[in-house]
Amino acid sequence: MKISRFAKQFILLRFLIILLGIIAIIMAPSLVIAIANGETAMIRAFAFPMGIVSVLAGLSLLSLRKKNLHLNARDGFLLVFLTWVLASLLGAIPYFLGDAISLTDAIFESACSFATTGATTISDVEALPQSLLFWRSIGHWFGGIGIVLITVALMPVLGVGGFQLIKAETPGPEKEKITPKITVTAKLIFLAYGILTAALMLLYRLGGMNWFDAICHGFTVMASGGVSTRNAGIAYFNSGFIDGVSTVFMLLAGLNFSLYYRLLRGRFRDVLDNTEARAYLIIFLVSAALITVNLIPVYGSPGAALRHASYQTASILSTTGSAIADYETWPSFARTVLFFLMFIGGCSGSTAGGIKVIRHVVLFKQMGNELRRIIYPRGVFSIQLNKKVGRKDVIYGVAGFFFLYLIVVAVTTLVTAASGTDLFSSFSAALSITGNVGTGFGAIGPRHNYSAFPDHIKWLFSFVMIAGRLELWTVLVIFTPAFWRK
Amino acid sequence: MKISRFAKQFILLRFLIILLGIIAIIMAPSLVIAIANGETAMIRAFAFPMGIVSVLAGLSLLSLRKKNLHLNARDGFLLVFLTWVLASLLGAIPYFLGDAISLTDAIFESACSFATTGATTISDVEALPQSLLFWRSIGHWFGGIGIVLITVALMPVLGVGGFQLIKAETPGPEKEKITPKITVTAKLIFLAYGILTAALMLLYRLGGMNWFDAICHGFTVMASGGVSTRNAGIAYFNSGFIDGVSTVFMLLAGLNFSLYYRLLRGRFRDVLDNTEARAYLIIFLVSAALITVNLIPVYGSPGAALRHASYQTASILSTTGSAIADYETWPSFARTVLFFLMFIGGCSGSTAGGIKVIRHVVLFKQMGNELRRIIYPRGVFSIQLNKKVGRKDVIYGVAGFFFLYLIVVAVTTLVTAASGTDLFSSFSAALSITGNVGTGFGAIGPRHNYSAFPDHIKWLFSFVMIAGRLELWTVLVIFTPAFWRK
Ligand SMILES: [K+]
Ligand SMILES: [K+]
Repeated sequence: MKISRFAKQFILLRFLIILLGIIAIIMAPSLVIAIANGETAMIRAFAFPMGIVSVLAGLSLLSLRKKNLHLNARDGFLLVFLTWVLASLLGAIPYFLGDAISLTDAIFESACSFATTGATTISDVEALPQSLLFWRSIGHWFGGIGIVLITVALMPVLGVGGFQLIKAETPGPEKEKITPKITVTAKLIFLAYGILTAALMLLYRLGGMNWFDAICHGFTVMASGGVSTRNAGIAYFNSGFIDGVSTVFMLLAGLNFSLYYRLLRGRFRDVLDNTEARAYLIIFLVSAALITVNLIPVYGSPGAALRHASYQTASILSTTGSAIADYETWPSFARTVLFFLMFIGGCSGSTAGGIKVIRHVVLFKQMGNELRRIIYPRGVFSIQLNKKVGRKDVIYGVAGFFFLYLIVVAVTTLVTAASGTDLFSSFSAALSITGNVGTGFGAIGPRHNYSAFPDHIKWLFSFVMIAGRLELWTVLVIFTPAFWRK
Repeated sequence: MKISRFAKQFILLRFLIILLGIIAIIMAPSLVIAIANGETAMIRAFAFPMGIVSVLAGLSLLSLRKKNLHLNARDGFLLVFLTWVLASLLGAIPYFLGDAISLTDAIFESACSFATTGATTISDVEALPQSLLFWRSIGHWFGGIGIVLITVALMPVLGVGGFQLIKAETPGPEKEKITPKITVTAKLIFLAYGILTAALMLLYRLGGMNWFDAICHGFTVMASGGVSTRNAGIAYFNSGFIDGVSTVFMLLAGLNFSLYYRLLRGRFRDVLDNTEARAYLIIFLVSAALITVNLIPVYGSPGAALRHASYQTASILSTTGSAIADYETWPSFARTVLFFLMFIGGCSGSTAGGIKVIRHVVLFKQMGNELRRIIYPRGVFSIQLNKKVGRKDVIYGVAGFFFLYLIVVAVTTLVTAASGTDLFSSFSAALSITGNVGTGFGAIGPRHNYSAFPDHIKWLFSFVMIAGRLELWTVLVIFTPAFWRK
């Protein structure tokens, strides 16, 4: 028993070191860019962490024999959380060594990257070396695909609250024979992600971006990240084509990637019948239409109003969080619609954060059932999803998650307010960080960044955004005493 | 079948007219005050509606024979909703005829009264005739006892979502033999309400109020109403004793009145074991303690900080919504605690509004169960309430209600924002109105009232506060097509 536990810990450690090795590999292109540009400080900033991890990874691979020990759900939770924490810490080294930012800011920046929050403390990004901009972008991209793979392929197996839903739908993994099917699913999803990203980069290039900007924006938009290589963001390019392409791809990034898996397998019917995707698009269309009408007097023409409304709606709903206009100057109604979109977020199994559309759909349907139950007290009502009668008990997981999400937002708001930030800015920041949006209202509106927050708040935000990214349960369960018992 | 429907409609009508007759009787003391003070305009303002309704009530009682027709749940919903609507309309007549306020403002004022929201459009209440001040206070008082009787005695029978909970606890009504037990319960609860109100009035008089102020404040505080006969509110009396008494009685008004019923019957154990009451007091103590610490630098002494913190915490938690200080000038943390208290509200079966503590407790416990389920996937978890293992399916009703509540707040916020009110004030107003608090932040902060809102928003608010007061379902179900079918 005790030996097996040690063996397990070794295996966990090896897993983690391999994962860190992957981070080092992901850093390689940035190092190449640093060398090519002769950015001497950045060469050291990338070579140092890459060197450490490569040696560690190599040593551990040599020293540890291969064992086929079964990892249980708890090991899975720990592994996922530690992956994001260690990636954030390791990924912070280039920011810290390469640029004159504090350790706290470097870790916040790196956590924002792997959690695809896209928040920043750096106001003049154009002053950053290209290698660091590239690192920031590719970090988002891998954070995005990481979370998609985990939510579509791993979490249903771990039984994370509410994800039984997805488990029931996902064609891939069954608890018994996980490994081969997971590998197939993961490969096809990775392929879809790659194809979409490549297409987006090409479209950006066609729209007038240089290759570097096109690649970096391709990475961050597909990851629902939202950071830019330009201080003015996407607005820098001043192109209706680029705005439109961004709008469409932000929406695509917020869709469940198991849909692309199904498209690749030719199962079109499944995609059309997907309740969550339909609700997501309806929310987008209604919100964008309402904001468009509200913006016509502001922008003078329906076309310009539509361009801004659809971009900002897609950006907040998909939790990308970028802006091409200062929506804080928009009329109160448009801002309020955006505010409520922050409570929704994208689809499950996407790169988007937030509470997720599917949970709102389930609660909405439950609300309807209760109304019906009052009229027909003897009726029995189920929740239909994807044109199939669903299990009613999905409510348990969804209700628990919904409340946990609001509690996390409330606690984060209170701690932020205790540091002196005004009430609404604190609330908006907590919502934005928990949902991995990045932008918000007041002190974190589109004209601001996160530099003004005190260090302990940046640490809190870094933790909360990772917890939010990993669907909260995954992380919070580790902090319960029961997790460490047994 | 058709005849029975007509007979039913007659009975419904008679019920309503009797209820309106009761309103007319409640108006009588105000008419007496108007006559005693020689307020000629007010004599007409009260005599007119009283006359109309008395004649109607008398005629209908004569013309309609007594029938023991069974009223079903749907008739109950309609009856309850129409009672509040007609009471609000009838109760508006004295405001409209007696004072120089518009019809919309009069109806808003009257709806605020019967819904115990305590919001107002009148800034100089000291200029109002005594009879009208008395009418405003006694209206709150009857609104308060009305909702207590309905939630404790009627709603469990109607099967309103989430109220199965209370039904399981309430010693009184069973679906089979309603009438005799309901009458006993109702009488004892009315008695408890009366004793508490009389005690409060006496304490206010001892604290230095004149009899008129003591009686008016006794009525509105016990009803969680929060309006005053003074422009400065309770702060006018500048008495630590009065502030303390108010704090205690606001908290008492927010407790489930079935607890007083049990106290009167000597069942002390039930009261100590009551999960909702314990959670309510813990929320109060923790919030008041946090705000006290935050306010010490503001008020200079722990005593003054405690006085203000406990008053304001009790006022918001119990949805009374009165203020003895401009908490908008308090530090951000204290304001944020108050903001989140607005999402909670008092206990079920009290005069308080809001989502109610019991629903938060159920969701909180469900959240804990989900965490446990992740660690012990084969475990079965129930929700324990009042030291008894409860039914797990209370989640269905509670989750449905919780989501409906947030939807109502969101829609109200959007409509308010569309009228040009800023985002946070709109959100705060929607929360305050749905939860029958009355005060809030920004445009509805303690230095403001509702006079600046356009008429259509006042109409919306009047409707939403009645819906919120009647636990939403009761009202919204009437607006579904299914309600009118069958
Ligand atoms: K983001
Ligand atoms: K109130």
